[in-house]
Amino acid sequence: MKVNGHPTRTLRVVDHGQAVEIIDQTLLPYRVKTRVLSDWRDCVEAICALRVRGPVLTGIVGAWAVVLAAKEDPADAALTEAACAIAEARPAVIELNRFVNMVMNALRDVPHSERWQTGVDLAEKLTQQSVDRCWRMGEVGAPLISQMYRDRRRPVNILTYGNAGWLSGVDYGTALSPVYEAFEQGTPLHVWVAETRPRQEGLLTAWELQQQGVPHTLVTDSACGALMQHGDVDLVILGADTLTRRGDVIAPAGSYPMALCACDNDIPVYVVTSTSGIDLSVNDGKREVPPAERPASEILWIKGLTSRGELHSVQIAPSSASVMNPAFDVTHNRFIKGIITEDGICSPTEVMARYARTGE
Amino acid sequence: MKVNGHPTRTLRVVDHGQAVEIIDQTLLPYRVKTRVLSDWRDCVEAICALRVRGPVLTGIVGAWAVVLAAKEDPADAALTEAACAIAEARPAVIELNRFVNMVMNALRDVPHSERWQTGVDLAEKLTQQSVDRCWRMGEVGAPLISQMYRDRRRPVNILTYGNAGWLSGVDYGTALSPVYEAFEQGTPLHVWVAETRPRQEGLLTAWELQQQGVPHTLVTDSACGALMQHGDVDLVILGADTLTRRGDVIAPAGSYPMALCACDNDIPVYVVTSTSGIDLSVNDGKREVPPAERPASEILWIKGLTSRGELHSVQIAPSSASVMNPAFDVTHNRFIKGIITEDGICSPTEVMARYARTGE
Repeated sequence: MKVNGHPTRTLRVVDHGQAVEIIDQTLLPYRVKTRVLSDWRDCVEAICALRVRGPVLTGIVGAWAVVLAAKEDPADAALTEAACAIAEARPAVIELNRFVNMVMNALRDVPHSERWQTGVDLAEKLTQQSVDRCWRMGEVGAPLISQMYRDRRRPVNILTYGNAGWLSGVDYGTALSPVYEAFEQGTPLHVWVAETRPRQEGLLTAWELQQQGVPHTLVTDSACGALMQHGDVDLVILGADTLTRRGDVIAPAGSYPMALCACDNDIPVYVVTSTSGIDLSVNDGKREVPPAERPASEILWIKGLTSRGELHSVQIAPSSASVMNPAFDVTHNRFIKGIITEDGICSPTEVMARYARTGE
Repeated sequence: MKVNGHPTRTLRVVDHGQAVEIIDQTLLPYRVKTRVLSDWRDCVEAICALRVRGPVLTGIVGAWAVVLAAKEDPADAALTEAACAIAEARPAVIELNRFVNMVMNALRDVPHSERWQTGVDLAEKLTQQSVDRCWRMGEVGAPLISQMYRDRRRPVNILTYGNAGWLSGVDYGTALSPVYEAFEQGTPLHVWVAETRPRQEGLLTAWELQQQGVPHTLVTDSACGALMQHGDVDLVILGADTLTRRGDVIAPAGSYPMALCACDNDIPVYVVTSTSGIDLSVNDGKREVPPAERPASEILWIKGLTSRGELHSVQIAPSSASVMNPAFDVTHNRFIKGIITEDGICSPTEVMARYARTGE
């Protein structure tokens, strides 16, 4: 997608795999600054510090981290130790574990001297594959939006939560990909961007949309019920961290209340995710997935620009305050109208049958 | 309630009614600073700028504003003009209009020379009445909490949204009054405080609770679904701006999603409001009450302390950003288990029968 008019990806391979360059997303939307990661530990730090985020991009950076580890020391012991540390950088992100394992499996039977180059080739392939998949999700989802436009004969109002745009992938994104594709095709639309406390990923979404010229409006998470009550939302599109066997959606905390509000107002909720985000080993997301917490500091400190344009954080409650920061919530399949993947659209209850068959 | 251990009210009458002193709530929870309002225009400014907030306190300050207007010029024309401006300071707050009218009606048949003193006497009475009512709401609601404790034999987890504590009234508050009373009686409890974007009134609630020593934890609005899913919430207590004839609740935007989440997890939702907040002229809150918007700046700018302890605002999105900031949402009566007023507890559908009879 575009940054200041220039086609850009969130990850760029440097010197044929000696390093990768990322956009430091902790500075967005205020500053666009890249960062070169030439050591697997840099990748772990970038994942932990959320300089890269979103299941797809986190997984891809994890894959490249293994490649950089193989560059440093391709021996089994060192590589396994590094791979464990990489996968543990964000254990709740299933795609991270999956991508790390994919690269590790490919390197296992390769002579040490060829491991790095084998890794580079695979990581390049996985990176491009993820771009293709995200683009395909857009192609699959866009007709849904254009059909809504034809039915309503006015711009389609789409509400999205968090950032499941191109910044969460390598390009195009998941939830926003159908929006970009429909917009590209000329479908009149407008996006309600929920702020998404505490980390305010909605600000990234608003920035992305602004860069592509897509009409949008920023709202607080708590405002979405009011918007839906007044008929201002036609469609809710969410991203997902994981999709379970029965179609429950594990996504950033706050997705579930959005889906509830949408259902109460007869607004369809679609979840866009790569098939690689499907975890057939889990059925009931609420019972089977243990809750995860994120740091209190994400709630207590808020970043923004001062009136002089300086990037500063302010603290909204004392450090001694008791704070709880759940990472995700679970939306039961009954609140989801459809799942959009690179393979097509299905109802959440079809996930099992569809993806058990293809072995995804 | 207490501030640094000292019993305090949000409003204090100065010089037998020459002025009123308020706590400037725009500086809370960072600074405790009072402000003397000696002119009705100061009151209008304080109401508009949300230096005072909450339906009860806004109404009471409105009443005192009329008194100060009568001090300045008790003639009909001037007084009526001032009263209109006062009521218009926050037209969505029904209690403001009601209190202004109450004082105006009382002054109408009084000679000009006695209007100010008559106003002072009435405003004093209304102020004390509002304190008594809030205290009574606590007395009515506390047994609900202590019963829950007896049933569960562990601290009762109460979730609250916004600030309907003593800062929103003159003392005790509405939604928090039963919490304070139950805590005072020794009932083990813990309060989940939802931040309440954009104006983060939850920070006021957390500050209040901390001042009274009530165990509490701050969470984002979007986290509440996750908490409820994991059985961490036993009871949701909300305040209300207005309660309609059929028991729909008009409350700060975000209350409705909370109630939806609670219902989906079989958690009872109680709304605490003074009977003066009941508007029998409205039935269906969603259809009959036009939406109201608050300024974009509330979303774009966030206040907090710098690492040096200075109070600063930072801007999270450019001023050019398109923003929508709905003031309230409507919770349908079917999501509310009970209404707590100074008169007792009833189901939302009983509001009509109960309060039409008493003429409230």
